[in-house]
Amino acid sequence: MAVTVECVPNFSEGRRKEVVDKIVYSIRSVPGVKVLDVETDPDHNRSVVTFVGNKQNIQEAAFRGARAARELIDLNKHKGQHPRMGALDVLPFVPISGVTLQECVEIANQVGARIAKELAIPVYLYEAAAKRPERKNLENVRRGEFEGLKEAIMTDDSRYPDFGPRKLHPTAGATAVGARMPLIAFNVNLKSKDVSVAKEIARKVRASSGGLPCVKALGFTLENRGMVQVSMNLTDYTVTPVPKVLDAIQKEADALGVEIAEGEIIGLIPLDAVCDVAARYLRVNAFSSNQVLERRIWG
Amino acid sequence: MAVTVECVPNFSEGRRKEVVDKIVYSIRSVPGVKVLDVETDPDHNRSVVTFVGNKQNIQEAAFRGARAARELIDLNKHKGQHPRMGALDVLPFVPISGVTLQECVEIANQVGARIAKELAIPVYLYEAAAKRPERKNLENVRRGEFEGLKEAIMTDDSRYPDFGPRKLHPTAGATAVGARMPLIAFNVNLKSKDVSVAKEIARKVRASSGGLPCVKALGFTLENRGMVQVSMNLTDYTVTPVPKVLDAIQKEADALGVEIAEGEIIGLIPLDAVCDVAARYLRVNAFSSNQVLERRIWG
Repeated sequence: MAVTVECVPNFSEGRRKEVVDKIVYSIRSVPGVKVLDVETDPDHNRSVVTFVGNKQNIQEAAFRGARAARELIDLNKHKGQHPRMGALDVLPFVPISGVTLQECVEIANQVGARIAKELAIPVYLYEAAAKRPERKNLENVRRGEFEGLKEAIMTDDSRYPDFGPRKLHPTAGATAVGARMPLIAFNVNLKSKDVSVAKEIARKVRASSGGLPCVKALGFTLENRGMVQVSMNLTDYTVTPVPKVLDAIQKEADALGVEIAEGEIIGLIPLDAVCDVAARYLRVNAFSSNQVLERRIWG
Repeated sequence: MAVTVECVPNFSEGRRKEVVDKIVYSIRSVPGVKVLDVETDPDHNRSVVTFVGNKQNIQEAAFRGARAARELIDLNKHKGQHPRMGALDVLPFVPISGVTLQECVEIANQVGARIAKELAIPVYLYEAAAKRPERKNLENVRRGEFEGLKEAIMTDDSRYPDFGPRKLHPTAGATAVGARMPLIAFNVNLKSKDVSVAKEIARKVRASSGGLPCVKALGFTLENRGMVQVSMNLTDYTVTPVPKVLDAIQKEADALGVEIAEGEIIGLIPLDAVCDVAARYLRVNAFSSNQVLERRIWG
């Protein structure tokens, strides 16, 4: 099974296609790195690149992306709806296979230190890589954005960067480098038109109100479908597996006398998380994603 | 998503390692082909090679394996427990991704015709590639084995090959070339010591006694575990998906008043079959294996 680390840098450029192309080209220039997706948003004036590699080449590709962004983007001229503090704004590393979250924290440290040293850009470590608890949350790291941080980084001790100068780079600002698990967007739709039911279940299952760890949940109305929805982000499926979330919702729905209409997986889901669900349904104790035929072929 | 065809040739040599190595080397010599597994059984005096490729290179690799076996194996000197009629005995093609069973039937026809023409070996088409209904079953094709077929192929119209001479190759015999879906070995263990319960459920769910299509099932006792088992082979999960099999067993078990202890997946299972199970548990209608992160990376 090949070691696979995912990296999802967000760059503060979503309008000048030639700039985005040059940044992506710099990432692709590292042998063995595969760019899976580039999403460019002109309103946010921001681009999100998704690429994968191993523990070594992912670091080189991330660094080259940071260097290209520093050369090509001037935050003094940047306007967009999305909050940002750097040309390369955020740089998370995500463990996919054959690598742990802790190893991704180490990668974030290595790359963060190199960006600070070689590019003279202050670096903040966030999420699983955070060295101060309040920096786990990206919002705290980026508060004030490029404009507000110019002063704060020099005068406010709580805004001191983890690596690099106590001074924003004049055009590239600062960069948040972190590590996190892959996110799973999982929704459960309920046969009810009463949004308070969905909100109540969301409150019961989400971590922030004492429910399941690593579960974020909100209740919504699905107007066109005459249903309500518990909409979730699962931030670590190894802590709270997907079937456990569904079972908790089922229990709450039973208690409130509402039926589950269907589930929805939005976007991508890691193979191991799919295998958790299948193993649960089949009541298989010893099922591993190593038994998936395609994993033998591709991995 | 890359096109992936699997090929699982069975060669009549399981004792002389240097012969097996040469055959495997001839398969590996085709660019783009990946050998996943080689299993050699001295008692059966037989080796099973598993390799994957695309619609073109899989054909070339299969042909080179057939040619090497013809050069290196003399069936007149072969003894082993497993029935066989050829140096390359059976050659099934299996659709894994981006290819249909029907396309594997076409591949079997192409390769079979080439083996017959260039190597002067009679070829029988079997399973999904069979042109005569009785040849769907490999046992019928191989009846009498190498020794018995020598005479029958010349005198019995029902044993006429689909391609090639009406005469066994003097040392390489004949080859069965076919196409089939990937097999899934799925067992369900029951909280009971009464094997008649497992046998009754097996009878209810298997195709041969009017149950679910593409399901083979037998009932066994698991002496050491104090349980009984419904042991199954699912021969086409696209016709009868895994969760449908489990649901049928659950229904029969309920009717007989026994509980399911656990399921077991033996060996490999295709990703699409795993996704069927996960989608069923999550009640997701529109879930596709394209949403599996690793498929984007590897496929």
